[in-house]
Amino acid sequence: MISDKMKSMVANSSVIRAMFEEGKKMAVQYGADHVFDFSLGNPNVPAPSCVKEAILDIIEHEDSLHVHGYMSNSGYEEVRQTLAEHLNTLYGKSYSAENLLMTVGAAGGLNVIFKALLNPGDEVITVSPYFVEYRSYAGNFGAALIESPTDPDTFYPDIEDLERRITERTKILILNSPNNPTGVVYPESVIRAIGEMLSKKEKEIGHPIFIVSDEPYREIAFDGIEVPWIPDFYRNTVVGSSYSKSLSLPGERIGYLVIPSEAEDFENLVAACNVANRILGFVNAPSLMQLVVARCADAKTDVEFYDRNRKLLYKSLKDFGYTFTKPDGAFYFWVKSPVEDEREFVEYLKNNEQILVVPGRSFGCAGWVRIAYCVSHETIQNSLPGFERTAQHYGL
Amino acid sequence: MISDKMKSMVANSSVIRAMFEEGKKMAVQYGADHVFDFSLGNPNVPAPSCVKEAILDIIEHEDSLHVHGYMSNSGYEEVRQTLAEHLNTLYGKSYSAENLLMTVGAAGGLNVIFKALLNPGDEVITVSPYFVEYRSYAGNFGAALIESPTDPDTFYPDIEDLERRITERTKILILNSPNNPTGVVYPESVIRAIGEMLSKKEKEIGHPIFIVSDEPYREIAFDGIEVPWIPDFYRNTVVGSSYSKSLSLPGERIGYLVIPSEAEDFENLVAACNVANRILGFVNAPSLMQLVVARCADAKTDVEFYDRNRKLLYKSLKDFGYTFTKPDGAFYFWVKSPVEDEREFVEYLKNNEQILVVPGRSFGCAGWVRIAYCVSHETIQNSLPGFERTAQHYGL
Repeated sequence: MISDKMKSMVANSSVIRAMFEEGKKMAVQYGADHVFDFSLGNPNVPAPSCVKEAILDIIEHEDSLHVHGYMSNSGYEEVRQTLAEHLNTLYGKSYSAENLLMTVGAAGGLNVIFKALLNPGDEVITVSPYFVEYRSYAGNFGAALIESPTDPDTFYPDIEDLERRITERTKILILNSPNNPTGVVYPESVIRAIGEMLSKKEKEIGHPIFIVSDEPYREIAFDGIEVPWIPDFYRNTVVGSSYSKSLSLPGERIGYLVIPSEAEDFENLVAACNVANRILGFVNAPSLMQLVVARCADAKTDVEFYDRNRKLLYKSLKDFGYTFTKPDGAFYFWVKSPVEDEREFVEYLKNNEQILVVPGRSFGCAGWVRIAYCVSHETIQNSLPGFERTAQHYGL
Repeated sequence: MISDKMKSMVANSSVIRAMFEEGKKMAVQYGADHVFDFSLGNPNVPAPSCVKEAILDIIEHEDSLHVHGYMSNSGYEEVRQTLAEHLNTLYGKSYSAENLLMTVGAAGGLNVIFKALLNPGDEVITVSPYFVEYRSYAGNFGAALIESPTDPDTFYPDIEDLERRITERTKILILNSPNNPTGVVYPESVIRAIGEMLSKKEKEIGHPIFIVSDEPYREIAFDGIEVPWIPDFYRNTVVGSSYSKSLSLPGERIGYLVIPSEAEDFENLVAACNVANRILGFVNAPSLMQLVVARCADAKTDVEFYDRNRKLLYKSLKDFGYTFTKPDGAFYFWVKSPVEDEREFVEYLKNNEQILVVPGRSFGCAGWVRIAYCVSHETIQNSLPGFERTAQHYGL
């Protein structure tokens, strides 16, 4: 009965989500304190106090018709203006409300820009490992997802490989830095080189190639590392952002797209994104949360919370003998499996230590696993003996 | 640069939304009190007090990680259970959490069930006039929207015409009662006859045909009229609901799908809807609003507010000589244009009386206009001289 596409998708339903459901079952079986669920990027940092204050104040004092009513599909103009000015302060830009479109999280935003740009048969390039939903999002519009493997030492994009994969059908390159699942942050030199390569290829193939920069983790970077603002390095960049991680609001589905005025065919692109937001069924980003994030534009993510987890895991995993990438941002460790088939490692951790991690092949990169450390510090502490015993089991 | 599909969509962008934008501009130009905007179904009834109370209580007393965090893609289990029990009380059913999927409004829900069911080339039947977005939603999945004209006296579905339009490609019949744009409510006899016809046709073509019942206006019915619960009359029915109108939360994007257990291939259908909710980029319905609507399950829509507007408009439009359908539900009058091309009538009202109404061809039915009377009573009162002068102008 269900559609052909959905049959296989139901069968291969997200491994990450399946582990989330399994984690909840295991918590009932073993007790929540004895299950160490590192499977989902569900922040364990509560929303900053400004979220609570903003909600209470808005609900107490603003007109309910305004707070819960329809607005333009692109979002409240004053919200977009406030967020634009926040970006201007951070990155020295001159964005205004017309450059922003409020979206149902970053996932909604990516679907909106994909719908605006993609014809069936077009190609979207991603660098692997990558957030597994990109494949579904491209598929929603009949486009193919092309994987470009990263440099296995740094997990930075391999620019020569990227260039080879660009064809006349290439419309979009998705970048995601700070990266899920590797935790790496692409330095300016890499972004600059990608921009130069794409500018050259755009001329060759005769139409724009857009960078769609998926940036839910922009605020979460450690040791003072700078996350480059990609529109500074490449004209046809659309940035997708979200408050899921930075304000710990993943369930609220609130984010935005930034479409810089210098982007090719700017006015039509903005109009297309507005229409896409409507006809995909989002209609608009949730209204109350739009008003809330505008008031919390200057709120700081509690990066310290994640950093404490990161430092403890870093030291411990190192001591136990695991191999992993340099975790500069987001809240993930990308760890090499001690056995070739990482699913065996994942099963071992789950069955023997009640530790849930995600196999790398879910991100298009077998042989590695992802540990989401956006959990309580106690979960990290209490999981360490399990990680240690597992390292010993594998003779690390 | 933008995709081929989007080019024409941007060009023909929603007339309703365009009028909404124009209404805002006119309000600046003429003053809000001198513009009578009947173009958009944006309720002018504030959300009932339980919404405010629920938000304040949840934000003050519940754990922020729970309130704003991820849950299962289908929504909080306790929310779905509460809403299921509410439906059980109303309709004598035995639904449970597994029959409900929380969605980003009814628009999100329709896209989810369409994604779950439709292959490219499939056909979705709607009865015209119809909510214009159905065409976009079917198009999102490569399906064709087939229009079946209604009986022009009652604007009820014409069952013989419907039957003639069913082919082997037919997967879905969308029904929408109380209806946007006509305001009619389909009686039980009509629903029963549709169910019988579809049951026969399902056997003929050898696969299920689903009724997708789009019911954002279920709570808004007047004079004690009963709105039949369609799953009582036809097994393969999926109901899409929303709190946009019933709790005046259109900007919050909160609704749900009901998938009865007796539906064909129930378990796969539920699984497919869960996956669709995720991969379309909704991920889940906004979390705080899920918790809010569960607490307000028993709240009553202020139908009296709309009924007051309805009665005044009914009497006045009748007195002025307009022809219109019996407005039993929703908050729309469907009025016959006094000139053949209703766009002329729409322009006349706008240019001479600052009255905004929507041309019927936006709903696949030329010669009529839609008046959304979910506005303040004063707007109705103050618009009446304009409607009267216009009637005189056309010699009604």
